[in-house]
Amino acid sequence: FFDSMKWKWWELQLADVVVAGSPKPDSVPVSWLKPGTTIINCSPDSLSGRPSLNTTETAVCSLAAAMRMQNMVKNTERWIQSQQLRKWDLRCLKLQPLSPVPSDIEISRAQSPKAVDVLAKEIGLLTDEIEIYGQTKAKVRLSLLERLKDQPDGKYVLVAGITPTPLGEGKSTVTIGLVQALTAHLKINSFACLRQPSQGPTFGVKGGAAGGGYAQVIPMEEFNLHLTGDIHAITAANNLLAAAIDARILHENTQSDKALYNRLVPVVKGVRGFSSIQLARLRRLGINKTDPETLTEEEISRFVRLDIDPSTITWQRVVDTNDRFLRKITVGQANTEKGFVRQAQFDIAVASEIMAILALTTSLEDMKERLGKIVVANDKKGEPVTADDLGVTGALAVLMKDAIKPTLMQTLEGTPVFVHAGPFANIAHGNSSILADKIALKLVGEKGFVVTEAGFGADIGMEKFFNIKCRASGLVPSVVVLVATVRALKMHGGGPSVSAGAPLKKEYTEENLQLVADGCCNLQKQIQITQLFGVPVVVALNVFKTDTPAEVDLVCKIAKQSGAFDAVPCSHWSDGGRGAVKLAQAVEKAANQKSSFKYLYSLELPIAEKIRVIAQKVYGAKDIELSAAAQSQIDRYTRQGFGKLPICMAKTHLSLSHQPERKGVPTGFILPISDVRASIGAGFIYPLVGTMSTMPGLPTRPCFYDIDLDPVTEEVKGLF
Amino acid sequence: FFDSMKWKWWELQLADVVVAGSPKPDSVPVSWLKPGTTIINCSPDSLSGRPSLNTTETAVCSLAAAMRMQNMVKNTERWIQSQQLRKWDLRCLKLQPLSPVPSDIEISRAQSPKAVDVLAKEIGLLTDEIEIYGQTKAKVRLSLLERLKDQPDGKYVLVAGITPTPLGEGKSTVTIGLVQALTAHLKINSFACLRQPSQGPTFGVKGGAAGGGYAQVIPMEEFNLHLTGDIHAITAANNLLAAAIDARILHENTQSDKALYNRLVPVVKGVRGFSSIQLARLRRLGINKTDPETLTEEEISRFVRLDIDPSTITWQRVVDTNDRFLRKITVGQANTEKGFVRQAQFDIAVASEIMAILALTTSLEDMKERLGKIVVANDKKGEPVTADDLGVTGALAVLMKDAIKPTLMQTLEGTPVFVHAGPFANIAHGNSSILADKIALKLVGEKGFVVTEAGFGADIGMEKFFNIKCRASGLVPSVVVLVATVRALKMHGGGPSVSAGAPLKKEYTEENLQLVADGCCNLQKQIQITQLFGVPVVVALNVFKTDTPAEVDLVCKIAKQSGAFDAVPCSHWSDGGRGAVKLAQAVEKAANQKSSFKYLYSLELPIAEKIRVIAQKVYGAKDIELSAAAQSQIDRYTRQGFGKLPICMAKTHLSLSHQPERKGVPTGFILPISDVRASIGAGFIYPLVGTMSTMPGLPTRPCFYDIDLDPVTEEVKGLF
Repeated sequence: FFDSMKWKWWELQLADVVVAGSPKPDSVPVSWLKPGTTIINCSPDSLSGRPSLNTTETAVCSLAAAMRMQNMVKNTERWIQSQQLRKWDLRCLKLQPLSPVPSDIEISRAQSPKAVDVLAKEIGLLTDEIEIYGQTKAKVRLSLLERLKDQPDGKYVLVAGITPTPLGEGKSTVTIGLVQALTAHLKINSFACLRQPSQGPTFGVKGGAAGGGYAQVIPMEEFNLHLTGDIHAITAANNLLAAAIDARILHENTQSDKALYNRLVPVVKGVRGFSSIQLARLRRLGINKTDPETLTEEEISRFVRLDIDPSTITWQRVVDTNDRFLRKITVGQANTEKGFVRQAQFDIAVASEIMAILALTTSLEDMKERLGKIVVANDKKGEPVTADDLGVTGALAVLMKDAIKPTLMQTLEGTPVFVHAGPFANIAHGNSSILADKIALKLVGEKGFVVTEAGFGADIGMEKFFNIKCRASGLVPSVVVLVATVRALKMHGGGPSVSAGAPLKKEYTEENLQLVADGCCNLQKQIQITQLFGVPVVVALNVFKTDTPAEVDLVCKIAKQSGAFDAVPCSHWSDGGRGAVKLAQAVEKAANQKSSFKYLYSLELPIAEKIRVIAQKVYGAKDIELSAAAQSQIDRYTRQGFGKLPICMAKTHLSLSHQPERKGVPTGFILPISDVRASIGAGFIYPLVGTMSTMPGLPTRPCFYDIDLDPVTEEVKGLF
Repeated sequence: FFDSMKWKWWELQLADVVVAGSPKPDSVPVSWLKPGTTIINCSPDSLSGRPSLNTTETAVCSLAAAMRMQNMVKNTERWIQSQQLRKWDLRCLKLQPLSPVPSDIEISRAQSPKAVDVLAKEIGLLTDEIEIYGQTKAKVRLSLLERLKDQPDGKYVLVAGITPTPLGEGKSTVTIGLVQALTAHLKINSFACLRQPSQGPTFGVKGGAAGGGYAQVIPMEEFNLHLTGDIHAITAANNLLAAAIDARILHENTQSDKALYNRLVPVVKGVRGFSSIQLARLRRLGINKTDPETLTEEEISRFVRLDIDPSTITWQRVVDTNDRFLRKITVGQANTEKGFVRQAQFDIAVASEIMAILALTTSLEDMKERLGKIVVANDKKGEPVTADDLGVTGALAVLMKDAIKPTLMQTLEGTPVFVHAGPFANIAHGNSSILADKIALKLVGEKGFVVTEAGFGADIGMEKFFNIKCRASGLVPSVVVLVATVRALKMHGGGPSVSAGAPLKKEYTEENLQLVADGCCNLQKQIQITQLFGVPVVVALNVFKTDTPAEVDLVCKIAKQSGAFDAVPCSHWSDGGRGAVKLAQAVEKAANQKSSFKYLYSLELPIAEKIRVIAQKVYGAKDIELSAAAQSQIDRYTRQGFGKLPICMAKTHLSLSHQPERKGVPTGFILPISDVRASIGAGFIYPLVGTMSTMPGLPTRPCFYDIDLDPVTEEVKGLF
């Protein structure tokens, strides 16, 4: 009985009860057992020669056998799931689209999402790989990447767009519509990987960001509100670092070297010792000592004084609220801060470099390293001061330990979605996380699809996706879907200006083939930009109900003439996945094309040269012009050893040029670089083309006037 | 077959499949069925006279029967759970305390918590009453209060303390040790209800707040970090309201009445309408119109202009970070804010009035009402301006919709804990939430115990617990546990000063009966304060390893002489629940005493009189002295109709008087009231006795130097 079921060491590690002596009493070292395991003495020897076990023995042995069986089943399940490239057995949710299309929240609420643990199981996640947050959200553990590391990745699809109107052209809805079509209609495994939106604009002017119409992530209010707290974690980490900077300056300015040293390296229970992060700083300073008593006065002084130059502080505080009065503030005016006032600002939380780090990191270890490398200021000698120097890296990592796990949700048709990270698309790279993409690529299997989205037009979001995100991840994209609308094309063709809040002019609601034809230059240019990277492009025309068949046909024709692999109208907003089936088929075909992906520039080029390549090849500029400040920053970063980082252009998304009013395909312009900054932890240099607002405001009548909570049904009203 | 199983209407409402015609085809109105129910035609008539059903009929009927059985089981389970006063069948976690006692995080990590859904089931929560957050935390839905509304409450125990040293005397550990003793050792149902700590001090000087030693909530890092995001939700709601104030002032200052009206009540799709919150404002203004076109110019002006007097703004922004440089700031210095600069401040998040509201609310509807009533400033006529006037109430409620649900965790011995709300104990009332207490009182059953804790000494936290929290909840406490330490008593007896960071003087580590005897005056006074409220008091002496048996005996003897029902030494910190068994037994006995609970003052008294009653009867002051500012605020609040609110004293906790250095039982002093403020949403007036810091700072060497995350094991290090 016992001998037939050999214990394996991992079974012993997992079992809560072990019957000692079976099968080989001496061959089971105690160190193999997990702490707390009960050992029951029931050796096979004591059973020999007897016809049957007595009741107690049977019970004990059955219990033990059951435990083993359970472990074996669990391990077998793991093994099978790790090997198999499965088609998911996914229960899709039926959609019955109404016309006219109701509000986003009404559509979202009318659908009952699957329990997230059911969805997780359907797509091959193991029970211990998810952490459930309520009924409809779960975080996915990074351990999955280790389990599935030998499984080939699925196809990787990027959704980008032409130069948009200020209203947006529907990249998120295309992304969601496309996966709904792939999985719910074509039965192909697929995953959408989306950015988490900032909560500020939800209550300001923008409303929700979970897609729209019948292509949405549900429940949309969960998507748009706190989600699983990642942005709150970023806010906490960002602001701890900010508080540490000012507090340190104050303490250094008001204490002698000796007092600082006694406080930084205190005697605890009679012993004085450096903490590990202090030892690391000593090593960076070239002081290879570990006993605090042996430092010379000069070494003590170098160790205790970060000597931050307050005028060089680039690290700002953040809140996830549209609070325009925090755009420029003076801090430190209380008496307790002894006159160390300085001018500062708050950014919206998603503009934090920590958000960019979350989006670009590839593991917990990598994240910790990036957090430590964040440069917050220069010291008075012009050397960078980092989070590591402030001793706060470990605390930042602790605050971010759950945020690093992507959040699983679902579309209106019950297909899986990851929501993870949402960095700004101007001062950062505007793409969702690498980790979500990587996990999704494993989960969909070799024949499946992962669809992700890049913020702004392809000239910005896609360029950064390729040159920054793909470089950090090593992933190779298969297809680009380029989203266009007749509305935006008409604007590029010379139509009247489009702005949020104002009603659309009649050019946009009536057929006008000339404006469409003229505006297709922007589409053509964005196709050409995509081709610079060697990836096949499918144009998705996001059709509005005012678009005419002739307009739609014209766009598709020109798109194909301009080099697109295919161009397809889609109606996912009003029809759900069914409205994007043709797009899905086109994307599937394009994914079988040969992709010869390449980066646009080598990291070895000097910073200014990299900026020039992007300006000329992507934007169509004649040249760039560096301000004195920009040149001096480039020199400084180069000297500090940051010259080989990729470039993240902070430019308006409303034109290919730096001037938002220049639509279509501007040429011959000189791109002015007013300043150059760096996110060293995230790993890029960001040149500023004009001023970028990093804190939105509240209008006279913010969205919140319509937002309400029904205290009886607990339903959210007025989000859109 | 069918007739033997009568359908009940509630079974029909819950069933997914119904066999039509059984038992009485005509007696089942369709309106009874839940939408989407499948009706299978299998009338008993069609079966009559036949020996048996055919296969299909059997399958259909079995399915239907199975569905019914399932519903019946579910409903029976509900019924039983709602009626029964059960002893929980709780699997307690074994403790094997080590000596010397390891660090809090080491102890926490050495114990494997039960899965929270298992714990929830053990204490009688239904599956759909919890929302799981990861493996060890779950939010509990308020619907439980409706289900168990007819069940009698358990006993309600408050843990308060004598006037503490700056190091704290261990109220949290007593609270946790007591429930560990009650449930794990005496097998009596019990719940601890604790405050959620601010994250700021965790990285500053204080470290964790999950109890300590072998009386802790686990996992302690989850308790001390983001938990389930409640404080982040408060921060978001608080700051949205703050941003709305300044933005509104800006918009009113830069626009005509007409422009404001056109923006506040815009034409949307050809129609102009008020939102519900605008209609409510109109009603408050006495304008009983609903058509925007019919308002007179004067009415429009009154409607659009809140006319906030910036100098009266009392609503501050918050962050959950120790950031001393935000104590006094100037906001609005960017050009976009057109010169409307003003001085402002950030408080730590837990000082937000919204935290106090969360702690005092009794339902979602009540919370919404309180949020709407928050007064943020006065207008230029001296009338209060509220969150309702700003139109932001619904949005605040939406941001707080999950935060209102208490978070379930467990102690080191596997007994249940609610963590919910943690308002400041000076400018607010320093008690955890009413909702957690109410839910826990139902879950423990009539013979069970709910133990909660009040911040600071009994003169502050307990007084507010009775006069503010119990008044809002209507709950009646059974017993007060008064925590004392030999250390604090020696301080009150004239021992040298005790401060954080500095080593303890020898008076505190060696036997000194005289100091103890002299210091017991403070204990005696706090016992007397408790007796003012008519509740029996048990003294818990939190024993340190340097306390001698003679010292311990002396304290217990004096306590009993001073009117305590009992006085018991306890060693839960080093021994876990086992060390608090005697305390638990004493509390159980005391709970059977007659409690004749009464409030200290009538709400009908004038504000100044209520302050005087507290000062004289509780603090032992000779009288109070109101500054001119305080008097004018009292007059204003009385005029505004807020005179009948309870009083929340903002006084130092380090002395019964307003002077922290006066230990023991100061007498004859005049309590100076420098200012009087109000939290109208939370529902109290708070007089300031001296200045209260609402933003801690970071010291030279914050705790974060030791905090780290192991990137491989994902373990948190250095929290304590």
